[in-house]
Amino acid sequence: MGIMRLGRVEARVLDLEKSIDYYSNVIGLQLMARENGKAYFKAWDEEDHHSLILTEADHPGLVHLAFKVRYEHELDEFEKKLENYGVRVNRISKGTRLAEGEAIRFELPTGHLVELYHEIERVGNGLKLNPDPYPENLKGIAPPQLDHLLIVGEDVEGATDLLMKVFDFHMSERIITLDGEKLLAVWLFRTNTPHDIAILKGPNGKLHHFAFTLGSWNDVLHAADVLGRNNVTFDVTPTRHGITRGTTIYFFDPSGNRNEVFSGGYIPHEDFTPVTWTEDQLGKGIFYHMRELNDRFTTALT
Amino acid sequence: MGIMRLGRVEARVLDLEKSIDYYSNVIGLQLMARENGKAYFKAWDEEDHHSLILTEADHPGLVHLAFKVRYEHELDEFEKKLENYGVRVNRISKGTRLAEGEAIRFELPTGHLVELYHEIERVGNGLKLNPDPYPENLKGIAPPQLDHLLIVGEDVEGATDLLMKVFDFHMSERIITLDGEKLLAVWLFRTNTPHDIAILKGPNGKLHHFAFTLGSWNDVLHAADVLGRNNVTFDVTPTRHGITRGTTIYFFDPSGNRNEVFSGGYIPHEDFTPVTWTEDQLGKGIFYHMRELNDRFTTALT
Amino acid sequence: MGIMRLGRVEARVLDLEKSIDYYSNVIGLQLMARENGKAYFKAWDEEDHHSLILTEADHPGLVHLAFKVRYEHELDEFEKKLENYGVRVNRISKGTRLAEGEAIRFELPTGHLVELYHEIERVGNGLKLNPDPYPENLKGIAPPQLDHLLIVGEDVEGATDLLMKVFDFHMSERIITLDGEKLLAVWLFRTNTPHDIAILKGPNGKLHHFAFTLGSWNDVLHAADVLGRNNVTFDVTPTRHGITRGTTIYFFDPSGNRNEVFSGGYIPHEDFTPVTWTEDQLGKGIFYHMRELNDRFTTALT
Amino acid sequence: MGIMRLGRVEARVLDLEKSIDYYSNVIGLQLMARENGKAYFKAWDEEDHHSLILTEADHPGLVHLAFKVRYEHELDEFEKKLENYGVRVNRISKGTRLAEGEAIRFELPTGHLVELYHEIERVGNGLKLNPDPYPENLKGIAPPQLDHLLIVGEDVEGATDLLMKVFDFHMSERIITLDGEKLLAVWLFRTNTPHDIAILKGPNGKLHHFAFTLGSWNDVLHAADVLGRNNVTFDVTPTRHGITRGTTIYFFDPSGNRNEVFSGGYIPHEDFTPVTWTEDQLGKGIFYHMRELNDRFTTALT
Repeated sequence: MGIMRLGRVEARVLDLEKSIDYYSNVIGLQLMARENGKAYFKAWDEEDHHSLILTEADHPGLVHLAFKVRYEHELDEFEKKLENYGVRVNRISKGTRLAEGEAIRFELPTGHLVELYHEIERVGNGLKLNPDPYPENLKGIAPPQLDHLLIVGEDVEGATDLLMKVFDFHMSERIITLDGEKLLAVWLFRTNTPHDIAILKGPNGKLHHFAFTLGSWNDVLHAADVLGRNNVTFDVTPTRHGITRGTTIYFFDPSGNRNEVFSGGYIPHEDFTPVTWTEDQLGKGIFYHMRELNDRFTTALT
Repeated sequence: MGIMRLGRVEARVLDLEKSIDYYSNVIGLQLMARENGKAYFKAWDEEDHHSLILTEADHPGLVHLAFKVRYEHELDEFEKKLENYGVRVNRISKGTRLAEGEAIRFELPTGHLVELYHEIERVGNGLKLNPDPYPENLKGIAPPQLDHLLIVGEDVEGATDLLMKVFDFHMSERIITLDGEKLLAVWLFRTNTPHDIAILKGPNGKLHHFAFTLGSWNDVLHAADVLGRNNVTFDVTPTRHGITRGTTIYFFDPSGNRNEVFSGGYIPHEDFTPVTWTEDQLGKGIFYHMRELNDRFTTALT
Repeated sequence: MGIMRLGRVEARVLDLEKSIDYYSNVIGLQLMARENGKAYFKAWDEEDHHSLILTEADHPGLVHLAFKVRYEHELDEFEKKLENYGVRVNRISKGTRLAEGEAIRFELPTGHLVELYHEIERVGNGLKLNPDPYPENLKGIAPPQLDHLLIVGEDVEGATDLLMKVFDFHMSERIITLDGEKLLAVWLFRTNTPHDIAILKGPNGKLHHFAFTLGSWNDVLHAADVLGRNNVTFDVTPTRHGITRGTTIYFFDPSGNRNEVFSGGYIPHEDFTPVTWTEDQLGKGIFYHMRELNDRFTTALT
Repeated sequence: MGIMRLGRVEARVLDLEKSIDYYSNVIGLQLMARENGKAYFKAWDEEDHHSLILTEADHPGLVHLAFKVRYEHELDEFEKKLENYGVRVNRISKGTRLAEGEAIRFELPTGHLVELYHEIERVGNGLKLNPDPYPENLKGIAPPQLDHLLIVGEDVEGATDLLMKVFDFHMSERIITLDGEKLLAVWLFRTNTPHDIAILKGPNGKLHHFAFTLGSWNDVLHAADVLGRNNVTFDVTPTRHGITRGTTIYFFDPSGNRNEVFSGGYIPHEDFTPVTWTEDQLGKGIFYHMRELNDRFTTALT
C-alpha cells in the first residue's frame, strides 16, 4: 500500500542531443523513446518504461518528480488525503506523457511539483526466466536503477511534515541547528534504503541532485573511471557520506544538473530511530572523509 | 503497516557454551543476555534487544521464527485474518521470553512455528548522534543484521499462499517443475531485499539456514577468512546465487545448523515480476558459478 | 639481469577453433595471429607479441614454457651455466615460431621443456602517452597479463635446485612431508609476486594449470560470472589460497587444460623467508576456506 | 643482485609522543623500539626490524631514505660505482642506529641523503609455518609494508640519471614539458611495482610523501574511514592516479608530513616501456578522476 518508490524524475536540459549522448553512453541508461523535445530513459534493471525524462529548456533543473503507488485506486485516496491536509491537487490525464497512465499532481511547500501514479507501460528487464544476474555488454556506468533525489527549499519542516503525514515517509536522518530548533536537512525513506527523497534548506524549487544506485564501492570506482575517461565534471570524487553511510560520487550532467551514484548504506525499517546531526558536524555528515563541504555543495543548484 | 521484517529466529543448539562462543566470536553478534538455558543475541546495527535466541536441546533446528509488525494493534488484526484464513492462533504473553512483549503464534502448513510481535525492548545501536558509520573493534564476521531464513516443508504452495494472502508477502523468485505444475521453492519478500523468507520442498518443519546481511563481496571474503581461521565447516565457499543475484557463503554452526552470510542482490518493490527457474536449471539458480548442487544442499537440514 | 618473467606458455588443445573462441571471448585475450595450426595470444597489458601459443593436437597439455631474459647476451651465459650444471641445451633459431627471436631450450628434471629468450616482436599496449588506466570495451575476463604456471613431476627437489641455482629463483612457499624429509610442492619467484612457477610432485611432464593475473577479489567475482555465463567447467569457485594468500578460481579450457585467475598475495623480495606447509595442512594451504582438496586437484592433469 | 627495495624512511616529527600514537594506532604500524628521541616501526608483513624511523625535531621532513641491497658485499661495489659516477660516499658504522648493520650514505643531486644497507635485525612476520593469511586483531589502517616515497628537488634529470645508471632503476612514468625538453617528474622502479621512488621538480631536499601498500580499493575505503574517524587531515580522499593506475589517499601526519596509502597499479618488468605525460595533462596524470591538482600538491612539502 502507498508509495512504492521514486518512480521518475523529469529534468530540464540545455541541449537534448548532448544530454541523450551523456545519459546513454556515460550514465549508461537505455533510451526508450524520444519525442516532442523529450527523451525517455530507463535503467537496465527497471521494469517500467522509463524513470528519467529529459526536457529541452533554456535552463536546467527539475520539472517534476513522481512516486509510483502500488494500486491505481490509491490515486483517489491520496487526492483526498492531500486535500484534507490542505494541498491542491491536479489530475494529469493518461497519455499526457508517453507510456504513462493517469497521475495526480501537487506542489510541495518547497515549491517542487510532485506526481503520484500507478500506471505506466511495463517493459521488463529481460531477466525473468533462468536468468543470468545481469545483461552482457552494459555500457558506461550502467546503474541498475534510479535511487533517490535531493531537493532544496525554504520550508524543510513543511515538506517533511507533508511527506511523513500524508504518505507515511519515515525519517532516516536529519541535520538540525545547534540550538535544536530548526531542521536544515532531512532524509526520508519509504523503501528499505536510507533515502528515497531528501530535502535541504535553501532557495525554493531547486534541485540538488538525483542519484542512481550502484552495487558496491568497486562499482563506484568503475563509475569514477568512466566519468574521468569521458571528461565529466566532478563535484566530489569517490567518498563516503556520514549521513546514510553510503559511498558516493557527485558530478554534473552537460547542463549542470548534479548527478550522484550511490552505493550501500544501511537497510532501515519503519521503526528505525532517526540519526541526528548537529549543524557543526555538517561536514562530517555530508563527506565523512574530508569532513568539510566544498562551496559548490550549497551553491551549485539547478 | 504489517510485517516490517524477520525480527528473530530461535534455534536449538546442542551445547550452549560452545554456541555462545561461536555466535559471539566467529559470527560476531552481541550476547545480550543468558538465562534459563537460552542465550539472546543482536547484531551490531540492530536496535531491538535480540534477533537470535539459542535454546539448548538434544537436536538442532528451528524452534520458531518471528516477524515484527509495525503496530501493536496489528496483532489483533492479523489474529483475525489468520483465523479467517483457517489457521489457529495462540497468544504468547508478554514476558514469556526475555525483553519481549506479547506475540501471536501460529503454524505454517510446512509445520513451522511463526510468531508476530511488535513489542520488544529497544536498546539502540549507539550510532544516532553525529555517528561514525560503524562501531570500532567489531570482532568476527560482524554482520549488521539478521537477513532472512530458508525453511523446508512439503506444502510449499500452502505456506506461500498463506504468507502472500495474509501478510502481503511478495514473490521474488520461484523454482517450478519442468511441466510448470509444482512449486519446488519460493522466495518471498516484505522488505526491499530479495527475500525475507524462502521455502524449499522437503521434509516438514525443517530449517535449511538462517542468514545474516553483509555489505559487499569483500565482506564475504573477510567472512570466509574468519570462518577458515576458526576451522568452521563450510557447506559452500564464496559464490553467487543465480536466485537473488546475491553473493554468499553457507556454513554450519557447532550444532549443524546451516548459517549463511548474504550480500547484495537487487532491490525489489511490490510490483516486481517474479523470476522463474525451471527444475533443470536448479543448479545454476542456487550456485550460479558451479551450476550444480552439492548433496548437502537438500539433505543437511536441521 | 636474468629472467624477467614467465614470458609464454605453449599449450596443446584438441580443437583450435573452439579454443580460439574460448581464449578470445571468455578469457578475453587478444588473438594476434594464427598460422600452421597454432594461435598466438597476448593479454591487453602485455607489450610483447604473444604470451600464449595454442597448438592443435590429439591430447591436451604443455608443449613448453618460456622465460624472458633481460638481455640477448644472457642466452649464451645461461647456456654455459646450464651445461655446467649438467643440463643439455638446444638452440631454437629465430623465426621458428612467429614473431620470436632466438631461444635456448632445455628439459627440467620433471620432464618439462623450458625455453629462455629475449627477442620477441614488441607490439605495445597502446597506453603510453597520457593514457587512460585501461582500454575500453574489454571483453570476457580480460586479465592484464599471464601470471604463473604450476607443473607436475617426480623430481621436485631436482627441478627446484636447478631453477634456484642456475636462474636465481627464490622460494616463497613449500609443502613438506611430516617428517620434513621430502618436498611435495614448491613455489618459486623471480618477480615480486608470490610465484612465477610452482612445481607439484606427481607424474612427469604434466601441467597442473597456467594462470592469468587479476587486479582484485572483485575481478575474481566478475571472472566467475563470465565463466558461469559461458558454461565453463569450474574446478574451484572463488576462494583464497593459504599458500600465496592470493584469491583464485580454477577452471578448465575446452581441452581440459586447467586455467586459473589469480589476484593478490604478498609482494616478496629476495630476502623473503619461505613459508613452510606440512603435508597434513595441505588442504588449508591450497584452499584456505574449505581446508580440503577436491579429488581433481591431484588427478586432473594434462 | 642490487637494490631489493625501499627499506626504510627516517622522518622528522615535531612531537614524538603524538607521532607514535598516530603511526601506531591510526596507520597501524608496530612500534618496535624507542630510544634517544627516535621511534622505530615496522609494518605487519615486514620481516626486518623496522622500515620507519621517527626523529623528533623542530621541523618535519625527511632525514634519509635507505635501500636494502641483497648482499653485504654490494656495499663495497656500490661505493665504487658511486665514486666512479662522481658521488662522495660515507660509511655509517654498524650500530649507529638500533638493529642496523653497516651502511653507505650519499647525497642525491636533489639534496636527499640516501643510504644503502644489507644488514638489519630480522624479526619475521610470524606467518611462516602453516600460517593464516594475516594476523588477527590488526588495528588502524594496518598496511602490510612500506611502498615508496616521492622526493622533491631541482635536478630531476640528475637524480634520475644516477639512480638508473648506478642502481639500475627503471623508469615507469615521467612528466615532460610540452616542448619535450624537461623532465618535471619521474617514477622509478626496482621491484615489480609501479614505483619504489619518484622525483618531482621543486625545492631541493624536500619530501612530498612516503607511502604504504594496501591490498585493494576496499582497503583504501577502510583506510579513509579510519582516517575520518581519527580526524586526520586529508590532502586527497580516495581516488585513482592516472600515473601508475593505482588507487590512493593522501593525508598528513601530525607534523605535516604527507602520507599515502597506495593500492594496485600494474606489474612492470625491466622491459616496460615508460609512460609519458605531457605537462598539460598533469592533472589527469596525478588525479585521474578530478583531473586537476589542488594547490597543496606542489606546495605542501616538508
